[in-house]
Amino acid sequence: MLGKGLSLNLATVREQWNLCKAVEACVRHGIRCVDPWRDQVAKVGLDAAARAIKDAGLAVSGYCRGGMFTAADAAGRQAAIDDNLRCIDEAVTIGAECVVYVVGGLPKGSRDIGAARQMVADGFAAILQHARACNMPLALEPLHPMYAGDRSVLSTLAQALDLSDTLGKGTGVAIDAYHVWWDPQLEAQIARAGKGGQILAYHVCDWLVPTTDLLLDRGMMGDGVIDLPRIRGWVEKAGYRGWTEVEIFSRDNWWKRSGDEVIRTCIERFQAAC
Amino acid sequence: MLGKGLSLNLATVREQWNLCKAVEACVRHGIRCVDPWRDQVAKVGLDAAARAIKDAGLAVSGYCRGGMFTAADAAGRQAAIDDNLRCIDEAVTIGAECVVYVVGGLPKGSRDIGAARQMVADGFAAILQHARACNMPLALEPLHPMYAGDRSVLSTLAQALDLSDTLGKGTGVAIDAYHVWWDPQLEAQIARAGKGGQILAYHVCDWLVPTTDLLLDRGMMGDGVIDLPRIRGWVEKAGYRGWTEVEIFSRDNWWKRSGDEVIRTCIERFQAAC
Repeated sequence: MLGKGLSLNLATVREQWNLCKAVEACVRHGIRCVDPWRDQVAKVGLDAAARAIKDAGLAVSGYCRGGMFTAADAAGRQAAIDDNLRCIDEAVTIGAECVVYVVGGLPKGSRDIGAARQMVADGFAAILQHARACNMPLALEPLHPMYAGDRSVLSTLAQALDLSDTLGKGTGVAIDAYHVWWDPQLEAQIARAGKGGQILAYHVCDWLVPTTDLLLDRGMMGDGVIDLPRIRGWVEKAGYRGWTEVEIFSRDNWWKRSGDEVIRTCIERFQAAC
Repeated sequence: MLGKGLSLNLATVREQWNLCKAVEACVRHGIRCVDPWRDQVAKVGLDAAARAIKDAGLAVSGYCRGGMFTAADAAGRQAAIDDNLRCIDEAVTIGAECVVYVVGGLPKGSRDIGAARQMVADGFAAILQHARACNMPLALEPLHPMYAGDRSVLSTLAQALDLSDTLGKGTGVAIDAYHVWWDPQLEAQIARAGKGGQILAYHVCDWLVPTTDLLLDRGMMGDGVIDLPRIRGWVEKAGYRGWTEVEIFSRDNWWKRSGDEVIRTCIERFQAAC
């Protein structure tokens, strides 16, 4: 088993249950850690969500998600920063080990990916002091390059580590196998992240062949082509001892099954295929 | 205008016309260069295809495509090598300036991307001598990482250049803006490719937001988010003076329009948005 064991990213059962029912289900199945999404928390209320998680005795491997720093104008970028400051406070209330970031894609009407990347760096710089004051680590998550247009101009682990190096203390990376498995530099960059003490989170699911939707066709571990045990080995070798978070967006498959079946399968596959 | 001007990759009108009719259409619209696909050539016959292109006075910026070196067993890999030797001969007959490679994804049942990448290197090594003897340059094309599972384990320009460096004389890269636009290293790697004299081809289309299909939803230049003029500038600065090839797979849009409209639009957008 990798590190502390399995954490369930609650997006995995978002279509089946609200946060409170998902937390109950985790307890029922012996899962000891979750990562809730902001909209799931908002739906039941921040305090109720925090209480449900705490009363259940669950750890919180991360809080999804901060980011979306890129905007067409300064007012939009400031609004994003303000929202990200609130997100950090929420993560503190929830008891999360870090906030996970989807940094934002190209602003509407823009083709300037360099400028968008600068907006992301500026956005992190603007929230860093507050995050440090709260002892809330910021986990920069490189997303698959197919999201560069609309979700994340942070596209590789090397780029995320470069940005974390620049930002310094209180920042690191979330490594999601789905986003980085194809990267020829992956082994080297994981080792680099380990040396820098920068691995804040490790996420898994699988890449299906064929993949029928860019966002909502992620696979259960073992059903796709990612060599998860190999990547786990690299992450372990780099010194990571935290949770392994399962996060599956699957509109036409897992989101249509019963939540209990999904969780049972996550647990089985975490043992057999990760 | 970049270099020699516009070349039409004939996949762009593959649903409208066979090769001979597409060549006639190019002449009608003043296009002076094409890149045919092997299946398009096979359909009308190699000699007929070569004659049609030659009689029309068209240049051939590339021949699509060699590759698919990855296979589950040695017999499959040898079959791929044999097929690639034939592909080089066809490219000579067609008068192509290079063969463009889609190297292959993970073999069926495999999750070992490192092994697949080695198969690709071995495959190129096995055909290199023949290619050199024929004076047929091999254009290694990195494909977008979303194709790593099923089409190409060559995923970044840096990786393609590393492989070309290893293989040496007679090899270079095809840079397709669609596949590499997201890469934080793009400017640096294009400059590196220029220094090495390794840019054999430059392809354009656009990345649509949203993209609804991983393979068949490429956009017309100007309809998406790629900063094509900026990338063109990098390619020019790197010393490339060849053709700019337009290659659009678009099942639900451009493949459904009249071929003449598609070509007219390619010409307009090549002037206005590239």
